[in-house]
Amino acid sequence: MPHVADRLLACSEKTGSLACVGLDPRPQLLPPILKQRHRQGYPDPRAAVAAAFLDFNRKLLDAIAGRCAAVKPQSACYEAYGHYGIACLEATIAHAVALDIPVILDAKRNDIGSTAAHYRQAFRGGAASLSGGPCATPISDWLTANAYLGWDGIEPLLGEPGDGGVFVLVKTSNPGSAQLQGQPSGEMTVMEVMADLVSSWGAERRGQRGYSDIGAVVGATWPEEARSLRARMPHSLFLVPGYGAQGGGAADALAGLGSDGQGVLVNSSRGIIGAWQDRSHGTWADDDWGAAARHALDRMNDDLNAHR
Amino acid sequence: MPHVADRLLACSEKTGSLACVGLDPRPQLLPPILKQRHRQGYPDPRAAVAAAFLDFNRKLLDAIAGRCAAVKPQSACYEAYGHYGIACLEATIAHAVALDIPVILDAKRNDIGSTAAHYRQAFRGGAASLSGGPCATPISDWLTANAYLGWDGIEPLLGEPGDGGVFVLVKTSNPGSAQLQGQPSGEMTVMEVMADLVSSWGAERRGQRGYSDIGAVVGATWPEEARSLRARMPHSLFLVPGYGAQGGGAADALAGLGSDGQGVLVNSSRGIIGAWQDRSHGTWADDDWGAAARHALDRMNDDLNAHR
Repeated sequence: MPHVADRLLACSEKTGSLACVGLDPRPQLLPPILKQRHRQGYPDPRAAVAAAFLDFNRKLLDAIAGRCAAVKPQSACYEAYGHYGIACLEATIAHAVALDIPVILDAKRNDIGSTAAHYRQAFRGGAASLSGGPCATPISDWLTANAYLGWDGIEPLLGEPGDGGVFVLVKTSNPGSAQLQGQPSGEMTVMEVMADLVSSWGAERRGQRGYSDIGAVVGATWPEEARSLRARMPHSLFLVPGYGAQGGGAADALAGLGSDGQGVLVNSSRGIIGAWQDRSHGTWADDDWGAAARHALDRMNDDLNAHR
Repeated sequence: MPHVADRLLACSEKTGSLACVGLDPRPQLLPPILKQRHRQGYPDPRAAVAAAFLDFNRKLLDAIAGRCAAVKPQSACYEAYGHYGIACLEATIAHAVALDIPVILDAKRNDIGSTAAHYRQAFRGGAASLSGGPCATPISDWLTANAYLGWDGIEPLLGEPGDGGVFVLVKTSNPGSAQLQGQPSGEMTVMEVMADLVSSWGAERRGQRGYSDIGAVVGATWPEEARSLRARMPHSLFLVPGYGAQGGGAADALAGLGSDGQGVLVNSSRGIIGAWQDRSHGTWADDDWGAAARHALDRMNDDLNAHR
């Protein structure tokens, strides 16, 4: 397998897209026809929601394949529906893998030692069976992670360099990120301390295109910080939330682009998967939320490429 | 319902225990007889492990009920087995609830806005069904959380004061915790900044016994820090990992006790649930891992109470 960062960049290049599509389903984002289809016949209301989510996601994935650099399922949306939700998440990941779309599991995991190693198994497979051999499970390419615990909390999430990667939270898009991330630390801020850790941890883990398997989450709402964080983390891919719905424009979202015009992945969730609700994307059949999403994604790609 | 902190303290008082038992099952901690029982007849090796975990946990819970202040399932151990593992986690939580044992879900969750609200639903229930009403799901009392994102990442995890609580990571037990948590921030350290945030967030959320629904994780391996953090967070319950297997002794683990001789919950996982592997706990029938766990828990209670 190629290095996970090379694989992501190759997909971005092939599709001409810097976009990551967030798969954050929730009942209010489901078209009425889909709710209707799944309202009856389930043993538990959670099973009905999970089945509707899976229908929704599969059509979305079929529609956007070949037009985005990656997809990012938000684990919380599935976890809210218990094991039914997680079965849906697994099937969603498997569908994306079958379509050859890189998958970033957004779960912001963090722990240490053997516990963190279990989180690695949850995203990359290989948990021990009763007979000792590894269990098979749908696997993602990337996992978002929180490094408040230090390297002890990140290393166990990683395998050999390039065999799966993490995006570490450095500067999140929300206003309250200032409370800790924006605090001073010596001559720096806490987020800069984190950025330097990310950079040093990934130094020897780079793929052929120069990017490591330890990326950084840097919100689109902080373009100035993004430029300064790029200087501190020249070899980290940036995963950028906050474009569109959260208020960040294309120029702001791309503030962290590397000198190679690469290295940034901009996420949009509601703006794409909820596009069927927005008449400005044209008129679509009630059951063609995929076409609306594709149209919104094409517009997002144009917007990002115009500011590249 | 009483305030979640009052409920935990009442259980601690009733059982005379400051112990929290970590339910972190893994195949190598399962007695051979249990592995044998579940080796055949499952559609997926993950289902076999999950079924064995559930047998294991139920007998443990039956054996330790009334002798510990709380139990703490480690989400990662279940997540490694996908939706099979999560179904086992749900059934484990339901069994603890039926035995009236407070449950701390150790998942170290963190996100913002509606995403964090989904994490609340995952631990407290209430996710929307297709018809809009809430879904029922087994619910925990507490969730461990990572507050690197600030209050925006904690508030959505909470409901009305006392309706479910969080333990925020302040000082974790691992050596690498120094990399970020131990860095200077003005006249303080990053962990002290975090402690002051925890204290201020919880100030108006206290129960009748004076403790808030925003607790703190403070590792048993840092007794000096625990004493100083207690002064900064007088109204937070401390969840203390690192006793036993990770090297912390009883006196160190209790360094953060409040002036009321309460306010600390000491976790042990392998030391209790893996006690059947340790001949010093006596001789037990092959299928009585519960008795071994109970014996180890009684010894832990004695050890903690001797240093109280």
